[in-house]
Amino acid sequence: MRDSEADLRHLIDWGRARGTRFAVRLVKGAYWDYETIKSRQNGWDCPVYFQKPESDVNFETLTRLLLENESIVTAAFGSHNVRSIAHAQALADELGIDRSSFEFQLLYGMAGPIKRALVEMGYRVREYCPVGELLPGMSYLVRRLLENTSNEGFLRAKFAENVSATELLRDPNQLVRRDGPGSATPATTATPVANEDRHRKNGASLDTAPGDTYRNSPLVNFVYKESQDKMRAALREVRGRFGEKYPLVIGGEKLWTDKLTPSVNPSAPKEIVGYVPEGGIPEAERAVKAARAAFRKWSRTPFEERARLLERAAAIMERRRYELSAVEVLEVGKPWAEADGDIREAMDFCRFYAAQMRRFGRPRLTQHVPGEDSYQHYFPRGVALVISPWNFPTAILCGMASAALVTGNTVIMKPSEQSIICAAMLMQVFEEAGVPPGVLNFLSGHGSVIGAHLVDHKDIDLIAFTGSREVGLKIWESAGITRPGQRELKHVVCEMGGKNAMIVDSDADLDEAIVDSIYSAFGYQGQKCSALSRLIALEENYDRVMERLLSAAASLRIGNPEEPGIVVGPVIDEAAYRRILDYIEIGKTEATLAYQAKDVPPHGYFVPPTIFTGVKPNMRIAREEIFGPVLSVLKVRDLDEAIEVANGTDYALTGGFFSRSPANIERIKAQLEAGNVYINRSCTGAIVGRHPFGGFKMSGGGTKAGGEDYLLQFLLPRVVTENITRHGFAPEETQQYRDEFLWPKR
Amino acid sequence: MRDSEADLRHLIDWGRARGTRFAVRLVKGAYWDYETIKSRQNGWDCPVYFQKPESDVNFETLTRLLLENESIVTAAFGSHNVRSIAHAQALADELGIDRSSFEFQLLYGMAGPIKRALVEMGYRVREYCPVGELLPGMSYLVRRLLENTSNEGFLRAKFAENVSATELLRDPNQLVRRDGPGSATPATTATPVANEDRHRKNGASLDTAPGDTYRNSPLVNFVYKESQDKMRAALREVRGRFGEKYPLVIGGEKLWTDKLTPSVNPSAPKEIVGYVPEGGIPEAERAVKAARAAFRKWSRTPFEERARLLERAAAIMERRRYELSAVEVLEVGKPWAEADGDIREAMDFCRFYAAQMRRFGRPRLTQHVPGEDSYQHYFPRGVALVISPWNFPTAILCGMASAALVTGNTVIMKPSEQSIICAAMLMQVFEEAGVPPGVLNFLSGHGSVIGAHLVDHKDIDLIAFTGSREVGLKIWESAGITRPGQRELKHVVCEMGGKNAMIVDSDADLDEAIVDSIYSAFGYQGQKCSALSRLIALEENYDRVMERLLSAAASLRIGNPEEPGIVVGPVIDEAAYRRILDYIEIGKTEATLAYQAKDVPPHGYFVPPTIFTGVKPNMRIAREEIFGPVLSVLKVRDLDEAIEVANGTDYALTGGFFSRSPANIERIKAQLEAGNVYINRSCTGAIVGRHPFGGFKMSGGGTKAGGEDYLLQFLLPRVVTENITRHGFAPEETQQYRDEFLWPKR
Repeated sequence: MRDSEADLRHLIDWGRARGTRFAVRLVKGAYWDYETIKSRQNGWDCPVYFQKPESDVNFETLTRLLLENESIVTAAFGSHNVRSIAHAQALADELGIDRSSFEFQLLYGMAGPIKRALVEMGYRVREYCPVGELLPGMSYLVRRLLENTSNEGFLRAKFAENVSATELLRDPNQLVRRDGPGSATPATTATPVANEDRHRKNGASLDTAPGDTYRNSPLVNFVYKESQDKMRAALREVRGRFGEKYPLVIGGEKLWTDKLTPSVNPSAPKEIVGYVPEGGIPEAERAVKAARAAFRKWSRTPFEERARLLERAAAIMERRRYELSAVEVLEVGKPWAEADGDIREAMDFCRFYAAQMRRFGRPRLTQHVPGEDSYQHYFPRGVALVISPWNFPTAILCGMASAALVTGNTVIMKPSEQSIICAAMLMQVFEEAGVPPGVLNFLSGHGSVIGAHLVDHKDIDLIAFTGSREVGLKIWESAGITRPGQRELKHVVCEMGGKNAMIVDSDADLDEAIVDSIYSAFGYQGQKCSALSRLIALEENYDRVMERLLSAAASLRIGNPEEPGIVVGPVIDEAAYRRILDYIEIGKTEATLAYQAKDVPPHGYFVPPTIFTGVKPNMRIAREEIFGPVLSVLKVRDLDEAIEVANGTDYALTGGFFSRSPANIERIKAQLEAGNVYINRSCTGAIVGRHPFGGFKMSGGGTKAGGEDYLLQFLLPRVVTENITRHGFAPEETQQYRDEFLWPKR
Repeated sequence: MRDSEADLRHLIDWGRARGTRFAVRLVKGAYWDYETIKSRQNGWDCPVYFQKPESDVNFETLTRLLLENESIVTAAFGSHNVRSIAHAQALADELGIDRSSFEFQLLYGMAGPIKRALVEMGYRVREYCPVGELLPGMSYLVRRLLENTSNEGFLRAKFAENVSATELLRDPNQLVRRDGPGSATPATTATPVANEDRHRKNGASLDTAPGDTYRNSPLVNFVYKESQDKMRAALREVRGRFGEKYPLVIGGEKLWTDKLTPSVNPSAPKEIVGYVPEGGIPEAERAVKAARAAFRKWSRTPFEERARLLERAAAIMERRRYELSAVEVLEVGKPWAEADGDIREAMDFCRFYAAQMRRFGRPRLTQHVPGEDSYQHYFPRGVALVISPWNFPTAILCGMASAALVTGNTVIMKPSEQSIICAAMLMQVFEEAGVPPGVLNFLSGHGSVIGAHLVDHKDIDLIAFTGSREVGLKIWESAGITRPGQRELKHVVCEMGGKNAMIVDSDADLDEAIVDSIYSAFGYQGQKCSALSRLIALEENYDRVMERLLSAAASLRIGNPEEPGIVVGPVIDEAAYRRILDYIEIGKTEATLAYQAKDVPPHGYFVPPTIFTGVKPNMRIAREEIFGPVLSVLKVRDLDEAIEVANGTDYALTGGFFSRSPANIERIKAQLEAGNVYINRSCTGAIVGRHPFGGFKMSGGGTKAGGEDYLLQFLLPRVVTENITRHGFAPEETQQYRDEFLWPKR
């Protein structure tokens, strides 16, 4: 690890300060693949060295550090590399350290000659071997096997390739490639960066994986103090402006009404994060007129300009990142990492949809035909109404709005009443990015008043909705009615709830299954449409699953999400608080309360994480979306029953499966009814471009936010065919794409 | 032309039989590009030679034929090629023909030395030159310029490239490449065949133009006697089984009810083409149950099997092609070529959707991420109700049904009551192709009874509708309501009417504009949703347009479409007949009757082709869909007004533009509000894969039949994400596609 030297120095200082002798075991290369993979997945700087000799150099540096501090720390050198071992020996001799005050550690059954030599030379040698259950032990051995047989590993070089002693004992410093050790990329992973070269100037090839057309923003890594400090500062700053008022924005004008809607901190409901004016029918009408008036020009703006608007918005969010996250922590009770993830997702939506629009924007040849050109391209639909929920207050609002904008529609944003400050921030971002007046309008007010009014409006062509099943079905129904003067059949993008199941197979790796299930069920208080709600465990290992599940649940950190490391904060408001507690009461009558957290904060809308067992598929807590930190566990006979139970609800949003059986995994891949199926990982945390998100059945209309088809929802296809035969003559070749059909400047 | 020798022999025989001397002018190479382009566009055998020397050889063959028959025919040799000229001279000498009894023809201003030499040698030489209007004359000269400067032309070789006399005079027989003169393809056209090599085994690259993934069936060319004979035989055969009864097919069973629906011949309404049982609510319920029961297995059938079903159906239609066309002629009054076009389109839909399914069927990687695979693929939606119109009775029904089938949905076909026999034929085709019981069901009956019942049904997941705006909007509205027990939000594919405009620019080529407009307006009696309904002519050339339009209309052949060459047959039934006549009366009161055909057949539903002038945009005949042979002409000031008028209706289906101005063409490409915009060609006759078809506004929901996005309407996207990190290790590369998520055979 790159920061191991700093960590070791810190440890030694600490040990000296306490005056307590302690032991340190020095190893290298363990979980190297895991670390490089995870860091690449998250877009983080890689914490391990990319070059094997760099690790060897570092090992020697730390060896010196340990031996030089022999007075307080007992060193154990875990390595099979004779150079590392010899270096430790030589250094100990040089420093005059007794051979009995440190030790070498080698794996049982490996590198016998080295061990024998060390013992003969009078060194302390500890042999170690895995003990415990068979399956986890096997996976440990497999990892060790892979690591120890890696192309760059010492054991392979020494015992399989007969590399010379001189070579094996060479100073690793001489082997480090100096052309940028930090920038070298690991050879064992496919990189999106490498794919970038293949992209064309004006949008990637259609054969490129859609998510490779752009790069996801990295998540903030809150293990670093610098990140923590920034977040604390941002929280202070946002606290400092509690109670500020943010205007509606319609047609480019800032608008105030007679009444202000307060938005409160769910961790401390007496605190008012800010106010936004309550819009009514007049403001709604004004918004429609502004959006309609702006449509003609915006629809004819080149897609490249629209794409750049989104990219500028993403850059502004990047700059204001901690501040925007802090608003989420305080307005909707998101833990730090969850809030940061939401801002990250908002930026990703902007950049991904910009990249996608560069693909859809260019008219595409339909077929090569001599003498005739036919190109398919897209028109925007018109005025889009965006109705968004509070649980991903920036990302979902931004995703739907940016998709509508980049495709050339004009937009009215109607955010949830619980997250109006986050929405006001997003409006600020787009204003700064230069969205023209009327193209994006920010309207707040009661959904039952202005939401319903706009959904029914003849001048709304498109509704993008994410929220509850109840409201979604109402919108779907109302949008079916074509009213006098309406231009287009009203198109609805409808994403609703879930009742998501995770199946834990009898051979599942419980180390992973339990951690990921707990996080999926209780992360952000279970207030995600993707959250795990039903854990389905097979009879065969039900007891083991439950034992570990309950103890893992007990380790959940519950509290005010302003503090770092909190996983479970408050639910959004009093109505949610009461509804979830009611469900817990229902659960108590229907099933068995297996776990409920104690000591939740007394003020604020804190609901204790709760687990029910003995749940049957027909019970209400197994069928209805609770949207809170409540997990139902269902015991099933076998995988057949597990799939039947998992598929047996009205919803089909996310679903998960933990298993080591390739056949069972393949079965789940084919049969689990969910828009997003996750194998051997958590069932929340979809990433834009990587995990196009959305479900079917009563979870949604079959759209995928952050997916390659998503923008099509906001567009109308159009084909332009031209007879290019000119009195018997036709050009030879037709180009696959043309830039755009250009609106003349007049 | 390849058949010129046979034609010439035929002419000579005919002249001899009549005893009338006549003259023949022999030319070569004219419209060579045009012929090769048109034949490739239509998938026909090319009527001209591909190799220049083949034409030269043929010219010499015909020269001999003409001179040998000098007693009845006077030959004129139109060529600037000295070998062709010398060959004629030598042959005339050999046959002892006087130099005054034939002539050479050369263009004014070209090849002066040749002309002078011929005159000096005592031959008759006629110089010719174009006369008349400037613009058509210019286009003639451009064509001649292109032809005469072609790489293979004589003039270029002689005068620009100084090829030796020996070479210029060489026998063209020596120059013909013998490695397949017939199979050689012209070098000047891009060929889909060449693209085929690039295709992968399992579906084409996503970057391939979608229409290149398959090959359109060629149209039957009724200029050939063989085709005419086959069509006549088919008509006789179908007539021979008039009055037969065809069953409903539900769950694989043939079903009869108490009541039979007759289908009549609109050219002779006393003739009953056949009967189909009238289904009611019980049959509709049975169909839903059958389709629902068959869904599970069909949805899990590999897409390759489903694609092959469609391809088998196409092959069966190919075999029964003339018969199926004949049924259309007799049941819905289609002229031969229109009927054949409909069957061709049905086959194309099957093959195109099969090809498209091979692209959508394979799960596609969303993003390259180390340690994790995410693939997006699709599930079928469920049970599809297909409600189709009578005007493309096989193609539209087959298109919607085959799209639903190949994507794994099960289908209930509810065809229009006016085209039940065509639908019964299609059911036969799919049965023979081996569609499993219940997967495709054929239900006939009153739309107001069973159609409405099924649209509202909780077990219908998807409705594919093509028809009137009135019915379409009702379906859209009803489908918005989510009923108890319903599994999915009901998805509607909705294609409705049009009020299509053609703009004729002031510099349009009227040779093309008039012919194509007449065909677009009156072909199949104007009973196409794509049919031209409003001709918009610019003031500047309005009078010329009208003069030619009216005389062209007068040449339309109206009559019983059983006869070849008919363009305008009967309208579909008495209700249509009366409605269209009513509109003509409305037109007479609103505008000026400029033309109405006389002498339409007295029996059958024949409506005379009618043209109104002085039409204003607000008149009913300019706003409402008439769906018959009625054309409104609107005079406008300039292109601005033309576009405003064209875009000024509730519809946006097809639209056309004739112009020679690149700037104006570019403007129309960007601004004409129509799903299908056609430049310098007719606005009907969309070809699958080439012209993805469908409109917006009140013309439809923004779907494109025969387009690359179409199958998405029938599918639900699903993403499967697998953590493939195994305790710290991840495979290096992820494949872009995988074959399928396989349903285990159990």
